[in-house]
Amino acid sequence: VGKPVFHTERIYDQTPIGVVMGLAWNAMGGSSIYIETMLVEQGDGKGALHLTGQLGDVMKESAQIAHTVARAILLEKEPDNPFFANSKVHLHVPSGSVPKDGPSAGCTMVTSLLSLAMKKPVKKDLAMTGEVSLTGRILIIGGVKEKTIAARRSGIRSIIFPSANRRDYDELASNVKEGLDAHFVDNYNEIFDLAFNDDQNTATP
Amino acid sequence: VGKPVFHTERIYDQTPIGVVMGLAWNAMGGSSIYIETMLVEQGDGKGALHLTGQLGDVMKESAQIAHTVARAILLEKEPDNPFFANSKVHLHVPSGSVPKDGPSAGCTMVTSLLSLAMKKPVKKDLAMTGEVSLTGRILIIGGVKEKTIAARRSGIRSIIFPSANRRDYDELASNVKEGLDAHFVDNYNEIFDLAFNDDQNTATP
Amino acid sequence: VGKPVFHTERIYDQTPIGVVMGLAWNAMGGSSIYIETMLVEQGDGKGALHLTGQLGDVMKESAQIAHTVARAILLEKEPDNPFFANSKVHLHVPSGSVPKDGPSAGCTMVTSLLSLAMKKPVKKDLAMTGEVSLTGRILIIGGVKEKTIAARRSGIRSIIFPSANRRDYDELASNVKEGLDAHFVDNYNEIFDLAFNDDQNTATP
Repeated sequence: VGKPVFHTERIYDQTPIGVVMGLAWNAMGGSSIYIETMLVEQGDGKGALHLTGQLGDVMKESAQIAHTVARAILLEKEPDNPFFANSKVHLHVPSGSVPKDGPSAGCTMVTSLLSLAMKKPVKKDLAMTGEVSLTGRILIIGGVKEKTIAARRSGIRSIIFPSANRRDYDELASNVKEGLDAHFVDNYNEIFDLAFNDDQNTATP
Repeated sequence: VGKPVFHTERIYDQTPIGVVMGLAWNAMGGSSIYIETMLVEQGDGKGALHLTGQLGDVMKESAQIAHTVARAILLEKEPDNPFFANSKVHLHVPSGSVPKDGPSAGCTMVTSLLSLAMKKPVKKDLAMTGEVSLTGRILIIGGVKEKTIAARRSGIRSIIFPSANRRDYDELASNVKEGLDAHFVDNYNEIFDLAFNDDQNTATP
Repeated sequence: VGKPVFHTERIYDQTPIGVVMGLAWNAMGGSSIYIETMLVEQGDGKGALHLTGQLGDVMKESAQIAHTVARAILLEKEPDNPFFANSKVHLHVPSGSVPKDGPSAGCTMVTSLLSLAMKKPVKKDLAMTGEVSLTGRILIIGGVKEKTIAARRSGIRSIIFPSANRRDYDELASNVKEGLDAHFVDNYNEIFDLAFNDDQNTATP
């Protein structure tokens, strides 16, 4: 996903509502990225998603998939919350001048949208990476080593990977993984529990 | 951001409502630029942003981000002001024939839009540079030296940079910074206070 | 602005409502051009601008800027005139086969649109050149010598330049300027006074 964006790492000490940390990588190494979402306006039938951040075609589609997945998850968790039906949402991925692409921020986008819809920040020092299918399956990604190194450098404590990447992670040297609490998931619902069902969420964003 | 635009420097003695001075640079040097905004028309649901000035893709996205950020800040500062929901706004960056790009005028665009929405001019002899994230974080930019030289040449007294650029500024020779009052910010709210919460704002635009 | 268009020079003896003479130049020399505007249709919310004349990207944006500026000026001069909110306007620049570009017809376009909106022709034998910013500042242009020669060849008596071009004009040989009444302006309002506040305007178009 684009060039490593070292200077945008950890632009948030604690991510506010609507913001979630993801992990990117390319041949140059890994880096943390933030998925930022904001409510633009609300009104009957105004549900829409607006994208910025020099996103490539795959990442734009990934955001559309995340929008559909988040809507389905919200219907399950908060059946009376009409957020996605009546809200125009803006999703941005800093920094604005770095081209980004790929599907692996899918689960991060879903989480960011749900955080905005439920007005709940995610757990502190959490990062995640994983392609999401339209039904919420979490699919394998690349760059496990680079992303793990980037997560540690950014002060992350909990990291979420697709179950299909468990072997990649197990094969990493132990010093690379030191201090990291890694989770491996198959379905978005597992990420939901890790990100939102935590006592820390009651803290002020 | 394009070629140095020496002839547009200081086209305003005092910037009117909706106009704010930014700073651009390239390999040829730095220059001041103006972000100009005007109200085109108002009406229920007419909220929109129209762009001119030969802006590149990154700068167009930067303007969209600024529009969302300005809306959120206005909601906080003037909760009853419906400006962005019902106003078609035109944003232009002179001069019209010079191609411009990059994210570093983000904070200048937010300020220009807020000036228009609140009908308040910004503080006199103020210039600013900084990428803005969707939640209002102010991110690192390039060309601190070139921009500082351009600011002094344009008669600027107060200059705003991202906190992440503080070291770049501290390393400049003192004669380059002479007479400049530099501010370093992490969040847009700090820029708001510097630009608008000033006794000079009570003067007639 | 394209090639010199000698065959379009002085296609009007007296420009009608909605038409104003500008000045173009390139490496081959200068020429007069006409900005022509016509009302297409009117109706609630039909405000729009349609462009023809093989205009390049900068000149298209220049027309959009002129549309916004003309709207703001009309609001000031004739607050009850709803022309721009409810009128679809067609702006053309003959001759139709010559590609044209550049921002320097900005002030001419504003004047042409205001002439149409107010149903007033501009002063006879007047030509103007100047980029216009969104707030109505008149910005420096190129080709002062070539444009001055073209103006005299076209029988122009009054010519309007940006103040920033005063030195260029002062340096021209006096025989080039013979018989020309040159005006130098900073703001569009000064052009408005020169173009419309004249006894000749009461004459029948």
